[in-house]
Amino acid sequence: MTPRPSYRPPKIPDMTVRRLSVYTRCLLQLEEDGVKTISSQELAERFNLNSAQVRKDLAYFGEFGVRGIGYYVSGLKAELQRILGLDRAWPVALVGLGNLGSALFHYKGFSRQGFRVSVVVDDDPAKVGREVDGIPIVASRDLAHEIKARGIQIAVVAVPVEAAQAVVDQLVAAGIKAILNFAPARLKVSRDVRLKDVDLSIELETLSFYLAKGGR
Amino acid sequence: MTPRPSYRPPKIPDMTVRRLSVYTRCLLQLEEDGVKTISSQELAERFNLNSAQVRKDLAYFGEFGVRGIGYYVSGLKAELQRILGLDRAWPVALVGLGNLGSALFHYKGFSRQGFRVSVVVDDDPAKVGREVDGIPIVASRDLAHEIKARGIQIAVVAVPVEAAQAVVDQLVAAGIKAILNFAPARLKVSRDVRLKDVDLSIELETLSFYLAKGGR
Repeated sequence: MTPRPSYRPPKIPDMTVRRLSVYTRCLLQLEEDGVKTISSQELAERFNLNSAQVRKDLAYFGEFGVRGIGYYVSGLKAELQRILGLDRAWPVALVGLGNLGSALFHYKGFSRQGFRVSVVVDDDPAKVGREVDGIPIVASRDLAHEIKARGIQIAVVAVPVEAAQAVVDQLVAAGIKAILNFAPARLKVSRDVRLKDVDLSIELETLSFYLAKGGR
Repeated sequence: MTPRPSYRPPKIPDMTVRRLSVYTRCLLQLEEDGVKTISSQELAERFNLNSAQVRKDLAYFGEFGVRGIGYYVSGLKAELQRILGLDRAWPVALVGLGNLGSALFHYKGFSRQGFRVSVVVDDDPAKVGREVDGIPIVASRDLAHEIKARGIQIAVVAVPVEAAQAVVDQLVAAGIKAILNFAPARLKVSRDVRLKDVDLSIELETLSFYLAKGGR
């Protein structure tokens, strides 16, 4: 008797997840414009996407198209939001309230997608114990307590590079499961924690690539 | 007689360009660690990349590997920097010096890759005519003059969403060829200008996707 192979769900590529976010934005735009249904070709043309890629990405999660109709805009948008975990509010801890931290705190895009900063961590004595737009600012020694009390799973790290690893260690010890890191440091976390580094200069480099190419 | 097909160079995928930036960072790290040569397998293992992808991405630009040796770390790094246009300094115009603009101004990653903010544009009367770290702050009415005088091709836009399209129109009229936009707006530019939107909430959504999945 041959042993039955165990079922392993397909691994979803990170880029597919990223594109789901983009598709969700396109569908929101279509919904605002009063579009009820759209084919993958029309969707691709309108938003400069690749229609085969759209179909392949969506196929990981189910059969969303209807033959002869295409996709129902509102229905697909709601499905993608559910898949991305955007059908609920996520409380977020923001660590570091310098220039970048302040910019992220006020960044409209986060709250629009259900990410709500519910505690700010900063050790500056001029800030600790105060509030920013009604959100408390606490010292890092109180970080674990606040994260547990508020059931926070996601943290955004906007501290100087030399402080980043210590902050991340504290966050992981406090039970944080996902970290968005803006400090330009290679940080280590345990395997059960997802760490995502945002490197803003990569975006500029894709631009200089095209300018450099044009100059040749 | 059949007409000869005209030669069209292969279109380089945006994601390939983005990954070149990542490879460059890995090679810089290896160089710092004193590594002289590395195979695509070792490179992939060490930095959690896909070795077939690495080879495919590099193949767009030439044959960099040496049989039995792999890649020469410093040589490949220099090649990739040249391809990405990082072998020169790029003067950059930064538009908007609020929280986000200030954070971007001080962002170490930009200058490390040769992107130097050489003029700041902000219409706040408290800022116009002053300097920030030796860089002049000018009003938007002087934007075109400054951009031409300084030979600037790249602009970073960090203004509120309602001001973004007007700013971008001014930049394009002034001859800017590439724009990195942080305002959460769908902006229009002419075909010969490259516009790259940075949407910081997409990064958070890839995290909530994994948390939401884990919860099911």
